Amino acid sequence: MRTLTGIQPSGALHIGNYFGAIKQMVDLQEKDELFLFIPNYHALTSLKDPQALKDNTLDAAITLLSLGIDPAKTTLWVQSDVKEVLELYWILSGYTPMGLLERAHSYKDKVAKGIGANHSLFSYPVLMAADILLYHAQCVPVGKDQIQHVEITRDIAVKFNNDHGEIFTLPDFKVDEEVSTVPGLDGAKMSKSYGNTIDIFCTEKELKKRCSAIITDSTPLEDPKDPFTCNVFALAKLFLDEAGQKELISRYQRGGEGHGHFKMYLKELIWDSFAPNRERRAYYQNNPDVVLEILEQGAQKARHIAQETMEAIRPAVGLYR
Amino acid sequence: MRTLTGIQPSGALHIGNYFGAIKQMVDLQEKDELFLFIPNYHALTSLKDPQALKDNTLDAAITLLSLGIDPAKTTLWVQSDVKEVLELYWILSGYTPMGLLERAHSYKDKVAKGIGANHSLFSYPVLMAADILLYHAQCVPVGKDQIQHVEITRDIAVKFNNDHGEIFTLPDFKVDEEVSTVPGLDGAKMSKSYGNTIDIFCTEKELKKRCSAIITDSTPLEDPKDPFTCNVFALAKLFLDEAGQKELISRYQRGGEGHGHFKMYLKELIWDSFAPNRERRAYYQNNPDVVLEILEQGAQKARHIAQETMEAIRPAVGLYR
Repeated sequence: MRTLTGIQPSGALHIGNYFGAIKQMVDLQEKDELFLFIPNYHALTSLKDPQALKDNTLDAAITLLSLGIDPAKTTLWVQSDVKEVLELYWILSGYTPMGLLERAHSYKDKVAKGIGANHSLFSYPVLMAADILLYHAQCVPVGKDQIQHVEITRDIAVKFNNDHGEIFTLPDFKVDEEVSTVPGLDGAKMSKSYGNTIDIFCTEKELKKRCSAIITDSTPLEDPKDPFTCNVFALAKLFLDEAGQKELISRYQRGGEGHGHFKMYLKELIWDSFAPNRERRAYYQNNPDVVLEILEQGAQKARHIAQETMEAIRPAVGLYR
Repeated sequence: MRTLTGIQPSGALHIGNYFGAIKQMVDLQEKDELFLFIPNYHALTSLKDPQALKDNTLDAAITLLSLGIDPAKTTLWVQSDVKEVLELYWILSGYTPMGLLERAHSYKDKVAKGIGANHSLFSYPVLMAADILLYHAQCVPVGKDQIQHVEITRDIAVKFNNDHGEIFTLPDFKVDEEVSTVPGLDGAKMSKSYGNTIDIFCTEKELKKRCSAIITDSTPLEDPKDPFTCNVFALAKLFLDEAGQKELISRYQRGGEGHGHFKMYLKELIWDSFAPNRERRAYYQNNPDVVLEILEQGAQKARHIAQETMEAIRPAVGLYR
């Protein structure tokens, strides 16, 4: 089964991104076909700092490679390296009733949040449909807020197929319920927009600071504590196997250690856990040409499929060559 | 000065198209830089017959070449042969407030006429802006209904230039008042949608039939007639020099000839006038490879400029390479 997903080039990734998305991709590539791209055209809809977008695009690739995405197994590319997606986007627009877009929650929400109502924001779901349909993706992992976009994709594909035969594969979405279980510093879902994140690749000093800032209750040091209501434990267990979790639970329940101890233990866990990734990251950062070459190889693989798709679509809609 | 204009691949052209647009282009190419393209991406917004679109695209090129467009002087290409236009279209969408498109008369009119309100129809002006700005066109000849589209183009260009420096040339529009002076069979403006046209390349039999169908008054054969209120004269004078016009006026005023005579005179005028064009047309129709090669040459010239423009724009907006 071919799974397609995008990682926005929106800057530093946090632990919620890792356990909510990237770890699943790294696991998935072992047993399935993963198409993973960095949607920098999409990012243009809201990011108006060109240098940041450019930097973040390469950084997103480096981050994915550092965290275990293997370009030998996964097709990894940057959206703007496969121009076919924009031709399909335009063609699909002719099969997209305006009402379908006007009903998109995501657009309405973003406008309500004060993001300028420009045309690219409005037409975002059509470009997303092109991303999905161009590569005949069968499965698209999404957050709940993106389910509607996959439904829009299916609607467009059905409309097109009705006119031109079974050209497009109808994608299914997959909502990973785990996404919401990574708490931030304050116990709410870890999210950049809440400012409650711990970045995967922050400095050790910053990591210490963030861990110290986790909100805990005021049980005295010597008293037993409940790990299952503790934000520190909720994060720590993500990094521990069953035995490690049991041991930590008994330390909580035994008493005699304060939240400060557990916070520093968490800090060590996180720091050690990502140590090999930090090393790989440093390597790629020092060798951007290697990253660019990997992205070019990925783009070639993606482009090959994209071109095949467009060779079926162009004559179907009447483009003359 | 660089003038850019498009000829829709919407089937047979009529005499109104010739005197209203094509003749001006043929004259223009002698003294100015003409960029002339066949907007087949735009045509997808309303034409849903793929074979017709494909045929009409090549036919539009053949018609233009037959009527005097000289590929050595004019850059003539098919829109879909220069993919850069779609990348610019997407980028410009980020600089296009939704309100600008929602206020577009042309969209509202088409929807009112019952054309399905799909997204490509709505976003038509953004693609038109990309067509114009990609090639740094300075002048865009338009019908009155298209003035607003050039104004939208200017608005988008100004917004983009404000953010990124003077990358785009602001185009001016030029409304050719002559466009409305070619009457159809019924005296109203000649237009396909009124069914009152005379096609440039119809058969001689069809031409005779159309000329016979021109509406005239019922002045008796022997009486003097007023050429200046006669639809036949209004069409005939387009094909006559001053001496020819004078002679025809005196024939009208002298009396003794009926409208039937003038109609057959007009038919001969039209038939003879387009004789060399018919010959050229037959040649291109029998040699489609020659036409495809001309279009490829034109696309290469257009693409060269398009690529230069995009090389300035991609880094400006933050596309990573």
